[in-house]
Amino acid sequence: METFFNPGSVAVIGASNSPFNLGATICRALNEISSWDGAVFAVNRKAETVHGCPGYAAVTDIPETVDLAVIITPARVVPQFVQQCADKGIRHVIIESSGFSESGEEGRSMQRMIDETARKSGMRIMGPNCLGVLNTRNQFCCFYGIQADDFNTFAQESGNVSYIIQSGGIVVIVLESFTTDVVRANKIVSIGNKSDIDEADMLEYFSRDDSTEVIGMYLENIKDGRKFIEAARRVTKPILAFKVGRTSEGARAAMSHTAGMANNDRIFESACAQGGIIRVNSISELHAMPKMFTHMPPLRGKRIAVFTNSGAFGGITADLLVQAGLEMARLSPETQEKLSRTGQIFNVANPIDLGPALSMQTFLEIFDILLSSDEVDGLLPVPSLWHPMVIDAIVELVKKCRHYGKPAAIYTPNAVHKTVSYRQKYQVPLFESPEEAVRALKVSYQQSCFVAMKDAIRSVYDMERNGEHRVAEPMLQEA
Amino acid sequence: METFFNPGSVAVIGASNSPFNLGATICRALNEISSWDGAVFAVNRKAETVHGCPGYAAVTDIPETVDLAVIITPARVVPQFVQQCADKGIRHVIIESSGFSESGEEGRSMQRMIDETARKSGMRIMGPNCLGVLNTRNQFCCFYGIQADDFNTFAQESGNVSYIIQSGGIVVIVLESFTTDVVRANKIVSIGNKSDIDEADMLEYFSRDDSTEVIGMYLENIKDGRKFIEAARRVTKPILAFKVGRTSEGARAAMSHTAGMANNDRIFESACAQGGIIRVNSISELHAMPKMFTHMPPLRGKRIAVFTNSGAFGGITADLLVQAGLEMARLSPETQEKLSRTGQIFNVANPIDLGPALSMQTFLEIFDILLSSDEVDGLLPVPSLWHPMVIDAIVELVKKCRHYGKPAAIYTPNAVHKTVSYRQKYQVPLFESPEEAVRALKVSYQQSCFVAMKDAIRSVYDMERNGEHRVAEPMLQEA
Repeated sequence: METFFNPGSVAVIGASNSPFNLGATICRALNEISSWDGAVFAVNRKAETVHGCPGYAAVTDIPETVDLAVIITPARVVPQFVQQCADKGIRHVIIESSGFSESGEEGRSMQRMIDETARKSGMRIMGPNCLGVLNTRNQFCCFYGIQADDFNTFAQESGNVSYIIQSGGIVVIVLESFTTDVVRANKIVSIGNKSDIDEADMLEYFSRDDSTEVIGMYLENIKDGRKFIEAARRVTKPILAFKVGRTSEGARAAMSHTAGMANNDRIFESACAQGGIIRVNSISELHAMPKMFTHMPPLRGKRIAVFTNSGAFGGITADLLVQAGLEMARLSPETQEKLSRTGQIFNVANPIDLGPALSMQTFLEIFDILLSSDEVDGLLPVPSLWHPMVIDAIVELVKKCRHYGKPAAIYTPNAVHKTVSYRQKYQVPLFESPEEAVRALKVSYQQSCFVAMKDAIRSVYDMERNGEHRVAEPMLQEA
Repeated sequence: METFFNPGSVAVIGASNSPFNLGATICRALNEISSWDGAVFAVNRKAETVHGCPGYAAVTDIPETVDLAVIITPARVVPQFVQQCADKGIRHVIIESSGFSESGEEGRSMQRMIDETARKSGMRIMGPNCLGVLNTRNQFCCFYGIQADDFNTFAQESGNVSYIIQSGGIVVIVLESFTTDVVRANKIVSIGNKSDIDEADMLEYFSRDDSTEVIGMYLENIKDGRKFIEAARRVTKPILAFKVGRTSEGARAAMSHTAGMANNDRIFESACAQGGIIRVNSISELHAMPKMFTHMPPLRGKRIAVFTNSGAFGGITADLLVQAGLEMARLSPETQEKLSRTGQIFNVANPIDLGPALSMQTFLEIFDILLSSDEVDGLLPVPSLWHPMVIDAIVELVKKCRHYGKPAAIYTPNAVHKTVSYRQKYQVPLFESPEEAVRALKVSYQQSCFVAMKDAIRSVYDMERNGEHRVAEPMLQEA
């Protein structure tokens, strides 16, 4: 699998100098924009050089070793090029062309031909009907149509979140959103119709990939439920998954897009419970939630302390926390007394009303009191950014969360464009709404439960393997 | 009520030149920042002039007529100033000070004294514990603490959305969000503890206010359910209401904030159904939804046509529409045939997959086909902004929606900071997420149902008044 992300040489099949040629955009990205330094060959009828990549009329004409082939030709000629790849001994092929099982019987029959060739030659195939791969570590990118500006914005900084995404349109939103966030992408793979490589294979790869801390998934269907659950169970990194097709209309639309079977959504729901996968509710959660894992310790209990300068947000967040199944921490008289002694607080019961203005010193004291209290598992701070000092206080809060091993999901009550610009400028993990902050606490808690249960299952299996006892397969779900 | 928004002269009681004096910020806003041209008097112990506003030691010392008094002193001296206002013959008083019924028995007793004075003198009181009034039409603003930059950003342009907001913190988010949106505020009133003037009074005022098209409300409680429902029933303008206290924790937090009784949330839910009020689910919906009413015709049926360049969003929006109780329009073979004839479309069944690129002409043809079809009540367009032409197409779409009398809730699949900046720059009514676009269609449909039913109720009452028959009180709810 590593070769898909880190090939030494690539053939772009279908890259030519015709106007609007999509293969040419891949040659340009690899040879002229990216700093990736492998060899790129273009395959086209006229054997013409494309953006400096030497051209050949057939894959088998390329005189050097080719690690990876990217095919982006009309569907009808794809089977013959896959055969050429097999003849050339290429073991890794990405088919970006569409027009296969998502579009009728003819497409399905071509897909069967390709599968046959692949099986015979031991070749692994990604796609068809996909966008391919982006690896920010080595700048390797075979997305078609990518512009220099976008590439430089998206791929220049490397992060720790990897994605398995069944649709190209979602890749753009995720990468664009990261430009104003505190996290960055590590590797992204768009798996399309997944005739061979599927979400379970990619889960397994990312679970072993050292630079991946969090795994995000956008799925339109599940290829093999059993394989998917088993792969997910072995992953202790957080897995965030969004799936379309909650309704029959959504499932119908997804089928026409990436050709999957219309899985019953309950099967996916159950797979998430059994595999320890966090199901997210929107595309924006796919890029908004990872920072809760990369920038904060896990939430290990349900008791949340809220503090705010704006009384309204005390009530709003209390509602949201309870609706999410979390709890408002009950602060003892001793803790409330300690808070009172900081001298400036309006209301020391949770939600704590800080009043209009605090000093840095008071903020730090409040952080210490709450984070060190065994009545509190995590924080939901809603400080108003009325003074630059508040940003400094947030920076200190992030450090203190690490110190005490408890998380904070921070929301500042501003219009979203302000929140986004503060987050980008000061690189603090701000959420964009109270709803998003509460979801971050919830998914962090869910992940803590999953990790504990995955550990328990492992030890049950270990016992079973040692003949200690035989048990029914446990079901993962939240406490 | 008009005097609160359009006074000829104002006394700011508690405005002095002491450092951090909040009353002084009101004098500054009225006399130095705003273009409002009424007279402003400062009342303080030393009778000193504040930001150019002549000072007096008592309200009764002011030699001229005073239309409105704004009191922003410590709570304990508020009752005596209310008495002075009564003696001076002032009929309109805004009490911004906190420390009344929201903070214990002493506060409640002071509030009773004030209420007594007001009743005897026929004075109307707004507050206490509030931020007062902003009227963008005449630039009158008695919010304390407002900075020149903010004032100029928020109040310079006048719009058609008026708000009744029980908490100052929410006012800031709404106004800040409007700076990047296509709508603007008309009047905003923060009613605080509402010892006298309440949400029902304000509903009635805004329903008669010509420059108000949409009414937004942020509430922590309802003062008088019956009065509220009856006022709402007489309003045919859209009313969007957010209320905290869905859970007992939220209600408890709200009580400590603005002193309301903890209403059972079901009572509010029922009041919304009976009064024809759209209950929104988040603060952001309070400022995001109004553009659906100001910029689009109403949605009169449930059948929505989706079109997108990104197949993924076909499935995502189909799920959301069905979950919201709307329907995916079924396009007849004739309509699909018309769409096919535009020549470039991947999938002509709803959700329509436009494929990667379209000409302006094709966009216009698609708009006409869908908007003129009697199979379609409204549109959910998700076009990718890959070219500036797409913005021009959106501008044309807004015009065509008006022409055909059917709405579109437009979402472009981008990171939120890009969407917000496109919306601001090109002044097109873009929503920030597919969830928000679907909510906009839903609330538009809800409002159509409410209007129809309010009309029906009115005619039932008319019949009853004419002795035609006697009926049980009808309950407003969605079809």
